[in-house]
Amino acid sequence: MRILTFIVDGGLRVGAEKDGGVVDLTTRCGLKSVKQTIASGQLVAAEKVVSAAEPDHDLTDIALDLPIPNPTKIYCVGVNYQNRNAEYQDASEAPQYPSLFVRNPLSFAPHGAAILRPPESEKLDYEGEIVVVIGKSGRRIRAEDATAHIAGLTIMNEGTIRDWIRHGKFNVTQGKNWDRSGGLGPWIETDLSGIDLEDMTVETRVNGERRQFDSTASMAFPIGRIIEYVSTFGTLLPGDMIATGTPTGAGARFDPPKWLKPGDVVEVEVEGVGVLSNQIEDEIIGT
Amino acid sequence: MRILTFIVDGGLRVGAEKDGGVVDLTTRCGLKSVKQTIASGQLVAAEKVVSAAEPDHDLTDIALDLPIPNPTKIYCVGVNYQNRNAEYQDASEAPQYPSLFVRNPLSFAPHGAAILRPPESEKLDYEGEIVVVIGKSGRRIRAEDATAHIAGLTIMNEGTIRDWIRHGKFNVTQGKNWDRSGGLGPWIETDLSGIDLEDMTVETRVNGERRQFDSTASMAFPIGRIIEYVSTFGTLLPGDMIATGTPTGAGARFDPPKWLKPGDVVEVEVEGVGVLSNQIEDEIIGT
Repeated sequence: MRILTFIVDGGLRVGAEKDGGVVDLTTRCGLKSVKQTIASGQLVAAEKVVSAAEPDHDLTDIALDLPIPNPTKIYCVGVNYQNRNAEYQDASEAPQYPSLFVRNPLSFAPHGAAILRPPESEKLDYEGEIVVVIGKSGRRIRAEDATAHIAGLTIMNEGTIRDWIRHGKFNVTQGKNWDRSGGLGPWIETDLSGIDLEDMTVETRVNGERRQFDSTASMAFPIGRIIEYVSTFGTLLPGDMIATGTPTGAGARFDPPKWLKPGDVVEVEVEGVGVLSNQIEDEIIGT
Repeated sequence: MRILTFIVDGGLRVGAEKDGGVVDLTTRCGLKSVKQTIASGQLVAAEKVVSAAEPDHDLTDIALDLPIPNPTKIYCVGVNYQNRNAEYQDASEAPQYPSLFVRNPLSFAPHGAAILRPPESEKLDYEGEIVVVIGKSGRRIRAEDATAHIAGLTIMNEGTIRDWIRHGKFNVTQGKNWDRSGGLGPWIETDLSGIDLEDMTVETRVNGERRQFDSTASMAFPIGRIIEYVSTFGTLLPGDMIATGTPTGAGARFDPPKWLKPGDVVEVEVEGVGVLSNQIEDEIIGT
């Protein structure tokens, strides 16, 4: 099931993508939010409704919100594809632990909505990523048990304002949390039966041109190990998200760099999950 | 008013401290949460109720929760008191921008509850901090307008697992987000009339011994500038918290280091706000 959050008359509803349309799970069975649906173990019941239903809306008639608008945490893993550490060219050894930073939900535009380039910087960059959505709470989860704690996968454009990323001495927070500087969605794919978490691909295209492409087989820290590590220090809750890092080929790595410009369309495709698409617009500061 | 969240029969209620007791603002006027009270502009009305009321509970009879259990963001400023940059002894220049990292609410124990030392590390350390709570939403707030966006102040023990702080190449996330490794509370002081944000003191005591003491006059980035900087990249929302950095004197800076041990009591006192107190306990992993 591809569960999602969509907007009707300003209100949020739970839905599922089916045959290019959306089955309305709020109207049909009273689901209040994707996070609550996951937390209360209602995904299986929702799947049954979806499999027997016809779509209630065309995808083109509705606007999506973030799949989960208010996750308790969004962790992001930095420099996780093997060849990215080399990309930094600082002769450092392969890291022993994942690098982790945090984003907040306001830093993302939903699928189909504009990613904003702020007037403070022209160095807006893309980073295509696979995102794990936690289904079952847990602490100190072993890597081999990690799959049981995953509700599904979604897609992130982990958009970055590059010149703000090194403002801080020890942290990248401010370059990673500009309002609507990234994209997240369109949905959470909960059917992982055809997906090999340890060898699935992510691809980023800018105006149709492939810029990033790699498989999770290249990860320094595979998904199971990431969940093990993060849950060592903190309890993972239903709806929590972990972005698992981006392949080589972000715009900053070209010479000269290829920053995103208004009108550019960035697509991030994750095998077995779908395509996240966002257009770039200049942010207009209100009068 | 010292607004707080407390627990009765497992349910959360809004209250205010008065004369060593708590006025129950959920029972008396239907307030649902501190965050909603701030966001809906009900602080002034609540103050009137409190000023006319007698306490409904003794503070010793109830348990507190975090003042806001679910803020959208908790930003923390690193290395903000002038002499702390020198404490790092890396001969770096004074930073041009604040260093920012993020904590999640699970990483804090409420006032009066135990801070946990996990079995994975003996390097649990304290950091006393003044916390700004946002009252009015804003983006690109000017430093001179910042006060109008503050609902009040609270207190943080920004507890840290020191050996996990440098696990990541670029970020301190994992050393700053252990479950219940810090403290937050007891309340949000909304009356700032007697407080000078640019010259107020914070003090940290361990078992009664003063370890940290400084004034915000020593800050590299004063509170107004922090709000200006953080709101440049992201919208601040009612209930968002910004911890403003800690003075010199954390346990890691002693030779040998003075790590916190079970039974230790850490108090953080902020002038005009109150005292946050937590005892250290070893975390017992459930069977």
